[in-house]
Amino acid sequence: MKLYDFAPSSAAYRVRIALNLKGLSADRVDVNLTDSEHLTDAYRAVNAQSLVPSLEHEGAVLTQSLAILEYLDERFPQRPLLPQDLVQRAQQRALAYSVACEIHPIQNLRIRRYLASEMGQDEAATNQWVRHWIDLGLQAIETQAPQAGFLGGTQPMFADLVVVPQVFNAVRFGADVDSIPRLMGIYERCNALAAFADAHPSAPAS
Amino acid sequence: MKLYDFAPSSAAYRVRIALNLKGLSADRVDVNLTDSEHLTDAYRAVNAQSLVPSLEHEGAVLTQSLAILEYLDERFPQRPLLPQDLVQRAQQRALAYSVACEIHPIQNLRIRRYLASEMGQDEAATNQWVRHWIDLGLQAIETQAPQAGFLGGTQPMFADLVVVPQVFNAVRFGADVDSIPRLMGIYERCNALAAFADAHPSAPAS
Repeated sequence: MKLYDFAPSSAAYRVRIALNLKGLSADRVDVNLTDSEHLTDAYRAVNAQSLVPSLEHEGAVLTQSLAILEYLDERFPQRPLLPQDLVQRAQQRALAYSVACEIHPIQNLRIRRYLASEMGQDEAATNQWVRHWIDLGLQAIETQAPQAGFLGGTQPMFADLVVVPQVFNAVRFGADVDSIPRLMGIYERCNALAAFADAHPSAPAS
Repeated sequence: MKLYDFAPSSAAYRVRIALNLKGLSADRVDVNLTDSEHLTDAYRAVNAQSLVPSLEHEGAVLTQSLAILEYLDERFPQRPLLPQDLVQRAQQRALAYSVACEIHPIQNLRIRRYLASEMGQDEAATNQWVRHWIDLGLQAIETQAPQAGFLGGTQPMFADLVVVPQVFNAVRFGADVDSIPRLMGIYERCNALAAFADAHPSAPAS
């Protein structure tokens, strides 16, 4: 198994946590977005959208982090990421999509670059944009978060894998983390687990 | 079953197609985003993120269109939206997320409003922003699209349900549809089917 990875990428971070929780190991190929390595023809041949991560497994190349999470959960059913109950599955996915479809795409690097280069926005305005969407999105998730445990209940599940990297971004961008105490609690409890700590952007590549 | 719906909403449009394909009917409750009906306390009690659609079924309220699609496919297995093969499932999901996570969130109404009100962008700049992200995203999907049939093969599947509403937006915003001939073919073949035509934003509510 080969993971095209970039340590700070929130989407790649989700997949690293999933691999760790399932006890799977993948060779990591670094695709440095800051150096625009994702825009080379070589990487575009792997991933038509020039996005990280991609996962190579048994000759297939899988793209889009959430599709990779679903694939890993179906292909390697040990330590499930989604519960059995259909409504609970929908709730885990909805929380994950609340990040993946409502927050992360709006705050990521290519968007910030466009705001600066095409719309002449300075760093202060761009950072305010980032914090606005993070705050709006995470505060809505906060209202659905438990006071103890994890979004997945007694153990981290699908939603936790997607929310934790977003909370990491919230901290990094100076978003209003005081307004999301439940999510901060979940974030800390997750980070205390090896599967999350070893996947952290600051963890040395194994 | 009750669908909180708004005819022009791309996310609600996905769910309407899925219901039609599966032969399910839902009472439609109109939540007019243009009139900010999604921002009322009454609707926020239904959907903490103030987003459309929401689906009420058997006492549970489900949110996030893609989570609703997965739920409908698991709960009502007739006329599956996802194939059996795990890699093909991942590919269908990846194409859907390529729209739902990479294009749609960046071009939707609340973003355009922020660009205008907080960043002083005029309509031309905002429309250019919308077309930029639609073109970038759909052109990447075009490279993965077949010349005949559907993204799902011989019949529309999960990816088609998400791509068709995005192509509708591409047409509406004057994006470069000449550069996506395969997707335009799929769009036309889908729209010729009753399940898609009846879910179209311009179709009369049944």
